[in-house]
Amino acid sequence: MSNETDYRPMWAELGLDLEKHDALLGVLGQAYGDLFLSQGNRPDGMGYFDFVMSEVHGLRIKELVDARTAGKIVVGTFCVFVPEELVLAANGVCVGLCAGADFGTEQAERFLPRNTCALIKSFFGFTLEKVCPYIAACDLVVGENTCDGKKKAYETFGDLVPNDFMVLDMPNTRSDEGRAVLKQAYLDFAARLERLSGATITAESLKAGIETANAKRRAMQRLARLRQADPAPISGLDALLANQVFFYDDPERFTSSVNTLCDELEQRIEQQKGVAPKGAPRIVISGCPMAVPNWKLPSIIESTGAVIVGEESCIGERGTQNLVADMGDTVEALIDRLVDRYLTIDCAVFTPNPTRPEHALQIAKDARADGVIHYCLQFCSPYQLEAPRLEREVEAGGVPVLRIDTDYSQEDVEQLRTRVEAFVEQIRG
Amino acid sequence: MSNETDYRPMWAELGLDLEKHDALLGVLGQAYGDLFLSQGNRPDGMGYFDFVMSEVHGLRIKELVDARTAGKIVVGTFCVFVPEELVLAANGVCVGLCAGADFGTEQAERFLPRNTCALIKSFFGFTLEKVCPYIAACDLVVGENTCDGKKKAYETFGDLVPNDFMVLDMPNTRSDEGRAVLKQAYLDFAARLERLSGATITAESLKAGIETANAKRRAMQRLARLRQADPAPISGLDALLANQVFFYDDPERFTSSVNTLCDELEQRIEQQKGVAPKGAPRIVISGCPMAVPNWKLPSIIESTGAVIVGEESCIGERGTQNLVADMGDTVEALIDRLVDRYLTIDCAVFTPNPTRPEHALQIAKDARADGVIHYCLQFCSPYQLEAPRLEREVEAGGVPVLRIDTDYSQEDVEQLRTRVEAFVEQIRG
Repeated sequence: MSNETDYRPMWAELGLDLEKHDALLGVLGQAYGDLFLSQGNRPDGMGYFDFVMSEVHGLRIKELVDARTAGKIVVGTFCVFVPEELVLAANGVCVGLCAGADFGTEQAERFLPRNTCALIKSFFGFTLEKVCPYIAACDLVVGENTCDGKKKAYETFGDLVPNDFMVLDMPNTRSDEGRAVLKQAYLDFAARLERLSGATITAESLKAGIETANAKRRAMQRLARLRQADPAPISGLDALLANQVFFYDDPERFTSSVNTLCDELEQRIEQQKGVAPKGAPRIVISGCPMAVPNWKLPSIIESTGAVIVGEESCIGERGTQNLVADMGDTVEALIDRLVDRYLTIDCAVFTPNPTRPEHALQIAKDARADGVIHYCLQFCSPYQLEAPRLEREVEAGGVPVLRIDTDYSQEDVEQLRTRVEAFVEQIRG
Repeated sequence: MSNETDYRPMWAELGLDLEKHDALLGVLGQAYGDLFLSQGNRPDGMGYFDFVMSEVHGLRIKELVDARTAGKIVVGTFCVFVPEELVLAANGVCVGLCAGADFGTEQAERFLPRNTCALIKSFFGFTLEKVCPYIAACDLVVGENTCDGKKKAYETFGDLVPNDFMVLDMPNTRSDEGRAVLKQAYLDFAARLERLSGATITAESLKAGIETANAKRRAMQRLARLRQADPAPISGLDALLANQVFFYDDPERFTSSVNTLCDELEQRIEQQKGVAPKGAPRIVISGCPMAVPNWKLPSIIESTGAVIVGEESCIGERGTQNLVADMGDTVEALIDRLVDRYLTIDCAVFTPNPTRPEHALQIAKDARADGVIHYCLQFCSPYQLEAPRLEREVEAGGVPVLRIDTDYSQEDVEQLRTRVEAFVEQIRG
């Protein structure tokens, strides 16, 4: 991304490899220009997100550095199961870490088997190559025992991060005992945050954290509803971008920017103003999360003239669909409410996980989608193994499904384009 | 395998596909002859195991059918985390299910992604092709939430098994909360067994079950110690076979046969009588379990003149290393002892799992091994991800490591042979 300010002294201070980091930003800026800025008829409200992306390794990192100077802690995460509410309650800043691009794959494969999913290889690669300013700016990096890949990779990754590291334990089921596992993980996390920040998490500060996170989610739920209009008032790429920035930005500024965007989308809907003509083929994506700058599949889909109108994904409606109830007058009671909420995230790591296909179908119905594209990272066993059932249930609901397995490389772009075009042609039928 | 009795009416009664089953037995019998019966200088005690294998789909199945007729229940499992002790306490018979050969892979891939490990594909294939008399003879099949592959595959598999099915939940860590997950799983399992069998599990019957299972494990521990002698009194293939039959045979008869074999091995050791000359290269295998008839890698290793002197595997010393303490006068207290014991199984699904590399190195040291071969099923993320650390720690202990990833196909046999020969040459140094 391009910057006017010279952030190089800050990046050097953070220990980045400036040469590699320049190369990364060059590629990223080029891709952003090609895929996002070239879109026609974008809402004005996307200007904010363009700015955020142009400063994603610049101003936002400076904000994190400044926050630390002012005595706040910065906590980096890879997963929606790490509760931002607790970080906020401990006067901290919570940020997602770089995991969306092929970078340092060769280095990563010194530690990981080749058949590890691209997301895990990516966060190893970014860290080993010293090009992720987020991880460099963290006081604490938090993993979580979700899939086998991450659970076991964190055993090694802990030695590579330049700062404190902890892993939250996770259950396989939503039983009472599974619940207790997650609750203890959140209690441990709260204690660690208090130790690190010197702040005390109180019922009051936790309620405030819950309200901030809920407001963010409410704004995303509003965006999710509005994008379902026909003609779609916003492209799938732009809506995905908002879902991605969700993990990086200052939460209050983000919420307000999403709501401003939504005000505009409401006007557009009223004016029947869309990014694609009314009746353009409408797609819902379901599956693995797409971290910045993993825009490959959505850009292919929308290049066919189809528009993506919903996202059953952690970086999407799976991640934002439910709010935390702030009933409770003690920290522990509020942590129970966190556990309630986080256990409803229907990630494929849980078994059984019946609500995910239901949710995918519901989004498709609500958005009057013509088809669902199930997107899976290669070697992501939980999502790959859920795919046949999801396909069966969504198709039984009358919505055709295309299953795509891919990674972060660009090698299969033309092959994917052919498959997606054929699918769009079929559902346009 | 060849039989004198005609078991075909029984197999038909069990719903097997006789034609495919004949084909399977033909291949199995041929492989057994080529790999086992052709070995020189075998202990006489292996005669029992040859007999068991010749009747593995015959007499043993008849025993299971007869047991059911006599009012016992038969419980089929895929994993060492399912406690045989409870099955025995409920007057049941516990058997391992077919999962060691490529069979019905195409059928299995209708339900499973191609990059699923061979073991999971195998049990789907055997079930879908109706060639596993064990699963057909079961009252209850029990899965367990170990790896992502199995955890998610069981969601589908439950619909395919011709009998009752349940899944035991498992934790990712050995925390207090993780312990509670496993304990509840075992309590649920006990309740299910009681319901199914009509028997009541009492402290007395559970103690008896514990003693039977412990005796089996004690015999295997004795075998594990004796095979460490130089010259090795038993081949790695034969010792593996005993570890495999562990999961199929009547426990008391099995224990007694292993102890008879061990008596003979003690004499052999005294007489310095080995299956390979003293000083032959000595290998320890560490990694994924090898279910019948997965004999590919051991047969390649021993065809080079090396001898396998230890097995850090579920079907091996990881699975048999610790006993259950029978302290406790209530069923619940005894189940706590089961949980204690099963949580010490250092399967790679746990995080962290530091004792596994330690155990591999310890076996290598005790057996004065020249090298460790780490064996991994392709796409088995937990073991693949532990491999680099295990290699590092075992090599730091002075023992060279070769890492092999493979599946059940025979396509890579010559390539594996080349790699194993080079390794054996190097450690023979």
